[in-house]
Amino acid sequence: MLPAPARRVIQLLSRLPGVGEKTAQRFALELITDPELCVELGQQLGSLPAHVGLCETCGNLAEVEEGRAPTCPVCADERRNKSLLCVVARVQDLMAIERSGAMRGRYFVLGRLLSPLDGVGPEAIRLGLLEQRIQTDQVREVILATPPTVDGEATALYLARELGARGLVVTRIASGVPHGGDLEFADQITLGRAIEGRRGVGS
Amino acid sequence: MLPAPARRVIQLLSRLPGVGEKTAQRFALELITDPELCVELGQQLGSLPAHVGLCETCGNLAEVEEGRAPTCPVCADERRNKSLLCVVARVQDLMAIERSGAMRGRYFVLGRLLSPLDGVGPEAIRLGLLEQRIQTDQVREVILATPPTVDGEATALYLARELGARGLVVTRIASGVPHGGDLEFADQITLGRAIEGRRGVGS
Repeated sequence: MLPAPARRVIQLLSRLPGVGEKTAQRFALELITDPELCVELGQQLGSLPAHVGLCETCGNLAEVEEGRAPTCPVCADERRNKSLLCVVARVQDLMAIERSGAMRGRYFVLGRLLSPLDGVGPEAIRLGLLEQRIQTDQVREVILATPPTVDGEATALYLARELGARGLVVTRIASGVPHGGDLEFADQITLGRAIEGRRGVGS
Repeated sequence: MLPAPARRVIQLLSRLPGVGEKTAQRFALELITDPELCVELGQQLGSLPAHVGLCETCGNLAEVEEGRAPTCPVCADERRNKSLLCVVARVQDLMAIERSGAMRGRYFVLGRLLSPLDGVGPEAIRLGLLEQRIQTDQVREVILATPPTVDGEATALYLARELGARGLVVTRIASGVPHGGDLEFADQITLGRAIEGRRGVGS
């Protein structure tokens, strides 16, 4: 019923995360009725991989320059503490931590998490690359900043075990009641963790 | 923090319906990590407006051919009853009715609905084009198939008033309990309409 070029666009759009057939159709119809947006988005996407790639060192987004390995602004910044390495699941998590301004070290983006329930085992994680990075940069502390979800915890546990034997300090980001949060509405696991992770205050 | 070409892509993607900044960012990151998808989608979008446009007669999707006004498969089908015209809000609604196989006439896509609450008045609807179409095709019945929402009903009411004075039969699609639906869980308005719209059965 739809013209073939529209069908192909819908097929490609439905490969985006969280986009199903119906949503892709809605996007395609919007693009067809707005040819200006459609053509500019097409041009920008066509040239995107030539301009933006993943940093060869950490996996963060980086500008691609000819004849040079893509290096992100964090890895290019010599003032960053090389011996402190923060392991995150996704580029978005790296960006969130950067916005907080609390991290003076560098990053390693895993790209994905272990997922025992979905059959994603340790081979999916680039442990070799992480180990190599730890050696090259003479890392002294690894901060595991995977999310406090089932898969994130499984991944942190696995990495802590693998890296712990190497004489490294391995830490995990704190989990507890978020800033500004209401204790009454916090779930049991979060409150349990907030109590477990309590710290001394005052003198 | 993000390279400029990535920022531009995120800006363009967030113009798609229902896509905010965060979702656009997720799409962009997926596209950057899958350059093949990114480049093909770019090519397809770049050439989409040259291949697919809106039918000049009804507003449905149509293949664009050089030197010819875009005509959709429904308008090109001579076996379709020209004197029966179904008015819909969006191309998606037209496609849904086509899938039902219940419509033997032709269509007119409004593109948008009246929305008194959002200040979208009658000037936003292409009434002149609809009237012209009714004359050219010697339409005898207009089926108002706008959705049974506040805006859809307002639009149907407006069109019924404007067109009713022209000696046309103007009908509205039935509203009631959907096929396979449970009366217990139907809302009050739907049930009210189902009762109001009751029809005689049996001999």
